[in-house]
Amino acid sequence: MSIRVGIVGISGFGGGEALRLIAAHPAFELVYAAGEGSAGSRLVERFPGVPAKLAGLLIEKWDPEALPPLDVLFASLPTGASAEALARVPETVKIVDIGGDHRYADGWAYGLADVWPEQIAGRSRIANPGCFPAATLNTLAPLLAHGLIAPGNIVIDAKTGISGAGRGGGDSRFGFAESNENLQPYGLLKHVHMPEIATTIERLSGGSADGLVFTPHLVPMTRGVLVTIYCRGSASTEQCLGAARAFYADRPFVRVTDRPPQTKWATGSNLSFVSYAADPARKLVIAMGVVDNLGKGAAGHAVQNANLICGLPETAGLDGAPVWP
Amino acid sequence: MSIRVGIVGISGFGGGEALRLIAAHPAFELVYAAGEGSAGSRLVERFPGVPAKLAGLLIEKWDPEALPPLDVLFASLPTGASAEALARVPETVKIVDIGGDHRYADGWAYGLADVWPEQIAGRSRIANPGCFPAATLNTLAPLLAHGLIAPGNIVIDAKTGISGAGRGGGDSRFGFAESNENLQPYGLLKHVHMPEIATTIERLSGGSADGLVFTPHLVPMTRGVLVTIYCRGSASTEQCLGAARAFYADRPFVRVTDRPPQTKWATGSNLSFVSYAADPARKLVIAMGVVDNLGKGAAGHAVQNANLICGLPETAGLDGAPVWP
Amino acid sequence: MSIRVGIVGISGFGGGEALRLIAAHPAFELVYAAGEGSAGSRLVERFPGVPAKLAGLLIEKWDPEALPPLDVLFASLPTGASAEALARVPETVKIVDIGGDHRYADGWAYGLADVWPEQIAGRSRIANPGCFPAATLNTLAPLLAHGLIAPGNIVIDAKTGISGAGRGGGDSRFGFAESNENLQPYGLLKHVHMPEIATTIERLSGGSADGLVFTPHLVPMTRGVLVTIYCRGSASTEQCLGAARAFYADRPFVRVTDRPPQTKWATGSNLSFVSYAADPARKLVIAMGVVDNLGKGAAGHAVQNANLICGLPETAGLDGAPVWP
Amino acid sequence: MSIRVGIVGISGFGGGEALRLIAAHPAFELVYAAGEGSAGSRLVERFPGVPAKLAGLLIEKWDPEALPPLDVLFASLPTGASAEALARVPETVKIVDIGGDHRYADGWAYGLADVWPEQIAGRSRIANPGCFPAATLNTLAPLLAHGLIAPGNIVIDAKTGISGAGRGGGDSRFGFAESNENLQPYGLLKHVHMPEIATTIERLSGGSADGLVFTPHLVPMTRGVLVTIYCRGSASTEQCLGAARAFYADRPFVRVTDRPPQTKWATGSNLSFVSYAADPARKLVIAMGVVDNLGKGAAGHAVQNANLICGLPETAGLDGAPVWP
Repeated sequence: MSIRVGIVGISGFGGGEALRLIAAHPAFELVYAAGEGSAGSRLVERFPGVPAKLAGLLIEKWDPEALPPLDVLFASLPTGASAEALARVPETVKIVDIGGDHRYADGWAYGLADVWPEQIAGRSRIANPGCFPAATLNTLAPLLAHGLIAPGNIVIDAKTGISGAGRGGGDSRFGFAESNENLQPYGLLKHVHMPEIATTIERLSGGSADGLVFTPHLVPMTRGVLVTIYCRGSASTEQCLGAARAFYADRPFVRVTDRPPQTKWATGSNLSFVSYAADPARKLVIAMGVVDNLGKGAAGHAVQNANLICGLPETAGLDGAPVWP
Repeated sequence: MSIRVGIVGISGFGGGEALRLIAAHPAFELVYAAGEGSAGSRLVERFPGVPAKLAGLLIEKWDPEALPPLDVLFASLPTGASAEALARVPETVKIVDIGGDHRYADGWAYGLADVWPEQIAGRSRIANPGCFPAATLNTLAPLLAHGLIAPGNIVIDAKTGISGAGRGGGDSRFGFAESNENLQPYGLLKHVHMPEIATTIERLSGGSADGLVFTPHLVPMTRGVLVTIYCRGSASTEQCLGAARAFYADRPFVRVTDRPPQTKWATGSNLSFVSYAADPARKLVIAMGVVDNLGKGAAGHAVQNANLICGLPETAGLDGAPVWP
Repeated sequence: MSIRVGIVGISGFGGGEALRLIAAHPAFELVYAAGEGSAGSRLVERFPGVPAKLAGLLIEKWDPEALPPLDVLFASLPTGASAEALARVPETVKIVDIGGDHRYADGWAYGLADVWPEQIAGRSRIANPGCFPAATLNTLAPLLAHGLIAPGNIVIDAKTGISGAGRGGGDSRFGFAESNENLQPYGLLKHVHMPEIATTIERLSGGSADGLVFTPHLVPMTRGVLVTIYCRGSASTEQCLGAARAFYADRPFVRVTDRPPQTKWATGSNLSFVSYAADPARKLVIAMGVVDNLGKGAAGHAVQNANLICGLPETAGLDGAPVWP
Repeated sequence: MSIRVGIVGISGFGGGEALRLIAAHPAFELVYAAGEGSAGSRLVERFPGVPAKLAGLLIEKWDPEALPPLDVLFASLPTGASAEALARVPETVKIVDIGGDHRYADGWAYGLADVWPEQIAGRSRIANPGCFPAATLNTLAPLLAHGLIAPGNIVIDAKTGISGAGRGGGDSRFGFAESNENLQPYGLLKHVHMPEIATTIERLSGGSADGLVFTPHLVPMTRGVLVTIYCRGSASTEQCLGAARAFYADRPFVRVTDRPPQTKWATGSNLSFVSYAADPARKLVIAMGVVDNLGKGAAGHAVQNANLICGLPETAGLDGAPVWP
């Protein structure tokens, strides 16, 4: 028996990736797609390579009160655009919100699926973590849970491919000619992802995340997030790797590697790579994490969360290897 | 019951893509991998994102006489390296040769699967078309078969991403710093793919491919082939599109589009996009074709051929949507 | 004594490149800059690396009737935006129009400077060739002038970096995520540059340019134009190269090379590279040309034209080597 | 009267950029070029766009005892290859060593030209700083000199374009297909540039650089270095900016900007951009610096040093604006 799913925000990159993953999912059947810029088109007009079975599906104008019967709705709307609208979706429809409006909001579970799967199963409103938080928190969770690093004064130097900025209105800053061969720091000391990271660090550690620093950079590539995180702690590299291997022993999507991870290892997948390099003499731990910002950073994580809330195997539709090169 | 398959040439890009597709294939079980540069490593050391079930498989040194029991062998060896070696593979092992040594060779079927599936089913030695020929011939086949263009004096202006040059020994011409922001014609009037294209044009048309011109270009992108083909013929755009739609009506991987295809439409998939723009007053037909050089141009086509010779559904393991963006 | 120059269209890529070249020019002094999007800013706010002497220059709102005293105005306005406005510029101000409105217009010289310098010197209204025409015509001129190819049925397969599409309003088609790793044909059978190419072919050859085909492609790189041109003629490769070497013997910017030119050879320069590969048995000549679309394809060519009309050495301010890698 | 200069290491990227800058220099005349891979070729064969006056210069095999009469030699050799060979260059030839062998070596001045020009003028053996050190030290110098940050526990998260890895032997890790769309940390806790950075921090501050952390990353772009540096100090953003503006008030190449610098601002130039964002409540200063790794990070800095030791204006040949976009 198939599970009826819908996507709102199909015109954006997160919605497009959700479409790709759902089209290949063994249990999900896409019956509804809505999008601002593409309403009135058939899916194949916007996604020329969409599987034939979905080619003719009409993209609707988004109206939360005019949905067809749905089991799960994936919402990939700009920040600020989903809170009010998703409140009007019927209770019977489970929602995974890929956008940022419901993270740590009342009534919503924070869907950090590799770390807290048990807090997700059985819920019907899931706030998907942001791309930087997903990479960061998967990397830090084992260290914080084992007390190997202090929760305060963590410095996160974060780098993302340009699809992380969203498809937007075609801001010329994200135009090819201006962003290719360019590397751009932005949002210093005030990025929107900081509260979600700080709250989770505190829940994982039981301590205060005071002094958290988060500096994002735009990298001239389409996909990929790498976080390089500087922490205080006296653990050795081997202790950190060991803690992570134990922490993720039964989790299917997190890979602990000896060498520093590269963004291309994750492209097109829901994988999360973590590694560590420590210098106990300096009480320094460098933690590194890689995800695909549209995979574990958005649609892949969302499908994983949907699998959990639907009682499906967590890896359903998500077991493809990354695309390389 | 699973079909036991092996890959030789796992260190190269074609072999790596075969690994990705086989790992996700519902009927194929990878039991053997061999490669020059990576012999002695486990798969996970070379492919950090490989599915867990294959992570520990040892990459062997290639020896055609020391194979485990296999149903199908995918060979992705450099041109010149496969003819002698594959002759020593036992008869009972079906072979799909992704490399160039057996195209139109005795005893080998030419695996142009979207056009001639019936010539492939039942065979045990398949020569996979090259990446430029796959894109070109899928695009021209409907026009040649319907007599809409002349087989002579066809001009193919071909463009490929840099993975098409192979992983090689790290030739600095293919280094990032020298090939990024660069566009390079090469191999003028003598590319290795010309004979295979000419022979197929003649088989499709029954006429002579005299005057064929083929000019390849290296484009600063990893994957993707686009061919822009200038032909003589008095058909209209609509007649060309109609002929292609009829020709591929029951074929799962070829998409006929009204607008000019873009390489990114095919990335990571086995799809082939074709389109046409004609000016009957000038007796001109411009035919355009797009494939992923590692998909339909190599490993995707190979899996399609393997499906055909194993009596599986042609789309088994190949129905994923392209990766976008 | 310095020559007082102005730029209108400083916000665009062509205007920005004119600024870079003029800033380094030994005789030109920039005294006026105007631009739509950046009026009210100082130059350094838009161009953080602009030489200190120009940093404080205020970008004005464009008003052709409120110009300061100027000797030369470089106009880099969108097609359609310059014809009416430039008519209101005082007669005493020489104009080089980088935009498309005045090519082969009454009263304007067509500024194909490497081929027809003598038609430019002494004039005061110059229409700069487009980027594709500059690359194409420099490549074909020696062959047409020597009668080595027929003027009819020429097929131009043209490729440009994405800055060639202009900075525009940030069309998402030119966004990094959608255009990186993508190769896109466009404008089939109807590109705006065709008339200018056809007219020039006819002037150079004295024959008809009937049957001209021009197919542009967007390549995922910032700068660079390559044209691959298929012509009918029975000359040998050596005859073509020899004709070009003779034709450009005293011209400073055109380089005739034995091997196929690459776009990166020209980056940041006003150079034009041409080469040829012929097959007399098939009466085929493949002519290849490379320019930087913002150099010889726009601002470099414009400065060369301005040098000619001001009686300066043609290479003034233009003798820098290309940027490599 | 011209100054006779030579380049050894012309086949590499640093040597190639030195060629470009010297070719445009008003006082330098290139009379000697040597290179491993290209000995026996004319310059134009390796650099198709080289100015005509240099096109025919023969690239020699490097022999420090068979030099023509030279005033200055630019050496751009791999680390480890220059110490012994440069000792055999006659005393009368001034040397700027772009390679790493002589930084803080006896008899050699450390050529941090924007900070310590007076220590360079009058010397005849200059060790050019590495690309990461140049970006880092220009950024930190004003803060350290004014005591606005502590010299200990500085964390440098460094990012470089791939030309920073050198042209090398074509290591496939730097191949386009593997490094495009990839972001790679490397050399954790042990990068070769650390001692030079630590020593300079100590000289600037008079304190200890204990606890220095340096993490380099390879970014998929050709040129550009960005360092994001996390320091302890209670200065405000305005105090940091003010200190840098005062420190560099009379220096021509360092630009202090309010907004975070981007690598593309510096491409092709000898400029160095610095900016700061501080949070006094957390005693945190984030210092950011951008250079072109082949400009201020190699050949541009070298020409600046050569200007200083030759008594020329420091900006001779270096006043070109960056290439944008």
